[in-house]
Amino acid sequence: MEEKVLIFGHKSPDTDSICSSIACEILDKKNGKQFTKAVRLGNINKETQYVLNYLGLEIPELIEKVEEGQMVVLLDHNEFNQSVNGIEKAKILSVVDHHRIANFETSEPLFYTCKPYGCTSTIIFEEIKQLGYEIGKTEAILMASAIISDTLLLKSPTTTEYDKKALEELAKIANIDINEYGLEMLKAGTDLDDFTEEQLINLDAKNLEKDGQKFVIAQVNTISIEDVLKRQEKLEDAINKEIENKGLSLFVFGITDILNSNTEIIALGSKSEVVEKAFGKKLENNRAFLEGVVSRKKQLLPAIDKNI
Amino acid sequence: MEEKVLIFGHKSPDTDSICSSIACEILDKKNGKQFTKAVRLGNINKETQYVLNYLGLEIPELIEKVEEGQMVVLLDHNEFNQSVNGIEKAKILSVVDHHRIANFETSEPLFYTCKPYGCTSTIIFEEIKQLGYEIGKTEAILMASAIISDTLLLKSPTTTEYDKKALEELAKIANIDINEYGLEMLKAGTDLDDFTEEQLINLDAKNLEKDGQKFVIAQVNTISIEDVLKRQEKLEDAINKEIENKGLSLFVFGITDILNSNTEIIALGSKSEVVEKAFGKKLENNRAFLEGVVSRKKQLLPAIDKNI
Repeated sequence: MEEKVLIFGHKSPDTDSICSSIACEILDKKNGKQFTKAVRLGNINKETQYVLNYLGLEIPELIEKVEEGQMVVLLDHNEFNQSVNGIEKAKILSVVDHHRIANFETSEPLFYTCKPYGCTSTIIFEEIKQLGYEIGKTEAILMASAIISDTLLLKSPTTTEYDKKALEELAKIANIDINEYGLEMLKAGTDLDDFTEEQLINLDAKNLEKDGQKFVIAQVNTISIEDVLKRQEKLEDAINKEIENKGLSLFVFGITDILNSNTEIIALGSKSEVVEKAFGKKLENNRAFLEGVVSRKKQLLPAIDKNI
Repeated sequence: MEEKVLIFGHKSPDTDSICSSIACEILDKKNGKQFTKAVRLGNINKETQYVLNYLGLEIPELIEKVEEGQMVVLLDHNEFNQSVNGIEKAKILSVVDHHRIANFETSEPLFYTCKPYGCTSTIIFEEIKQLGYEIGKTEAILMASAIISDTLLLKSPTTTEYDKKALEELAKIANIDINEYGLEMLKAGTDLDDFTEEQLINLDAKNLEKDGQKFVIAQVNTISIEDVLKRQEKLEDAINKEIENKGLSLFVFGITDILNSNTEIIALGSKSEVVEKAFGKKLENNRAFLEGVVSRKKQLLPAIDKNI
């Protein structure tokens, strides 16, 4: 069992999960707090890799499971099925998150901060400011990158005034043109050519559960939905395999156009008709085009969760 | 459906649940925030009544259930089985609590603040200070009373540095002798003569659940354990009825001596041997004396929860 505190985001980590974890490790180290070590629960995506390259930072260590009693801090998630294997027996010291709370429990009181903001890093930024800690350029760019990623440069409907304010202040500390940097970062994340279909559907996949029914909502960002749809047949093969292996009732794969803020979904599974009710659109060739939809948390998940 | 936001603590409300709710209503009103109304989920105990009498405040309205979509704020609890009937379909805007998280879920992100402090009012005090709100004498005494109650005048092992600091600052604002006031308040809560046995076992009872097994840990404060034990036979009758009615595996009734900081427990139910493992003491005449034990949250619950 590691004596240090492991800090990590969810499985299929995104930029918020990775960058918030590293920022906390750096800030804790600087301020002589607990010995925190940032780790990750899955592969780094290309957008996150862009940030780490930009800052010359190493990829955090991958962990597969934690031992009983391991001290952990969860960022950007709370549901055990999105967390590390063994989480049920870990000692959860703290959670900082901006999602619904479900499939989560502890036997002891803990520090838990959830705010309905666009990004975990915005909450961390507020807490750090309250503690009076100094924020260096590296941490500022890490947290700014997380906010840009989660809010699609403040364009997603999940964006709050708090995210805008935090990004503005972080950009000042980082002393960079946030729009230029942000667009380059987001574009880096849309290069999907190197991935197999199995990888694509798992790049940013959330495992969910309701009344014993398991379902997945996965999402990729792109600058051309059409390009991704060229691979529809193979994507469906990969999704159907996943449905069988995991016993899913529904798999929704969202292909989000980050320039025009729309999403095309592919929906498969015995409960695929749920998305028709959820969005008032007939599936054609297993697909539906959802205008103005970009957010899984605010748009895809609530509508599907209500109807499944 | 009420348009205002209902704010309340747990069933079998204690001083923290009631006084934190009223303090928040007053502070929200003063600061022009959301229209918050403090309500309660059960009878006021004598300790809380002492506080309300002292301040000339009315008892909050009792509610039995909430309608679908009712906006609510939960204080001092999160578990749905300790909350209002209908909570599953309410819109939970915010939770401020200092207990473990379990049997709780939402479909949307929310404000959730849990800190492992001795009292909910300590967390509220910190938040109010950060917001820069002015705290008047009434709110100060309400929050101080909650802290005194939950920490038994800072003597319970649940007490943290944050509780001490908050009580000190609140005492200054209230401009009262906190030890004198606190002891009078605690003593008022130990007058159990007027209560039937059915009432006694429900005065401060927590309904708990683990792996489908339901159990209850109830507690009363006293200045004479012996006095309460004179009613053991009738208490056991009441407890056995409760076990049958609610299908409980275990009912633990803690009688806590607040002057000497010990607890005598009465344990009944098919799983009563759990407390023997939990505390390394044989039950004699269904009872065990637990030296130095005063806290349900920090001492009774974790030990029982681990062994049930």
